[in-house]
Amino acid sequence: MTSQSATKATITTPGDREIHIERIFEAPRDRVFAVYTDPELIPEWWGPRGTTTEVVQMDARTGGDWRFIAHNSDGSQTGFRGTYREVSPPERIVQTFEWDGMPGYVSVETAVFEDLGDRTKVTTTSIFHTTKERDGMLGSGMEGGLNETYQRLDELLARLASE
Amino acid sequence: MTSQSATKATITTPGDREIHIERIFEAPRDRVFAVYTDPELIPEWWGPRGTTTEVVQMDARTGGDWRFIAHNSDGSQTGFRGTYREVSPPERIVQTFEWDGMPGYVSVETAVFEDLGDRTKVTTTSIFHTTKERDGMLGSGMEGGLNETYQRLDELLARLASE
Repeated sequence: MTSQSATKATITTPGDREIHIERIFEAPRDRVFAVYTDPELIPEWWGPRGTTTEVVQMDARTGGDWRFIAHNSDGSQTGFRGTYREVSPPERIVQTFEWDGMPGYVSVETAVFEDLGDRTKVTTTSIFHTTKERDGMLGSGMEGGLNETYQRLDELLARLASE
Repeated sequence: MTSQSATKATITTPGDREIHIERIFEAPRDRVFAVYTDPELIPEWWGPRGTTTEVVQMDARTGGDWRFIAHNSDGSQTGFRGTYREVSPPERIVQTFEWDGMPGYVSVETAVFEDLGDRTKVTTTSIFHTTKERDGMLGSGMEGGLNETYQRLDELLARLASE
């Protein structure tokens, strides 16, 4: 495991309905943005370790839908879906996020990709309809899963850089 | 046109992300709730006059999805979709609402059905992620369309009562 694999995302809660996440990746912005929007690469990094994510649909352009099914190592599975409200390469993705376990609870995630030369800062802001929904997400163990996801993304970016 | 067909819904905006609508219907609560959740009756009342609504999907139970396509008299069409977050007969329906013209902009509508004996008061509260989205809905001509929809519902309820 490389040193940046241990990097933790910075998670804060400005306002009463938001989650704000910052993370720096050791790859240029175009590469990071391309990985975020490539359906073939999603199974390589999306979700915690031990999860295999199946891309059922991923139309990564403004107005397109996405649907993923996460297969866990114990054989269980759960689905996620949403709509791309905006895809503006290489700077910005706005998408809705909904988990099959709580259908109809829809948050909006805005990811902004900041060019730091050889590195990229990704700032993700999630907004919920209510404080209760926001707090439900915070209490779901998202932080551990998120950090594993980002570490897997570090590793994928490192592999791609060495190809 | 009967007298109650001219009834206007009361629309207010408590808070900065909500639209609150109240309307009384001349039918008992069980009947009004049944009409709201019956896919076969949706084309009879859903949408402004001159619109024919096609029910593509309507799984009116907690967790189910819905999708309607509104066919206008000029041949144009537009779609709407969402998920039933809660369906609790005969009291309460909570569902998401998303228009194809603005994909990823999702509001949550809570309809509460109050038993007034031979009449029913339906209170619908829509909540948006932002004030801008709420104001966009208010500025879309929703009030005229809503009142026509409710008048069509009055007429359908009167027909059902006379059968």
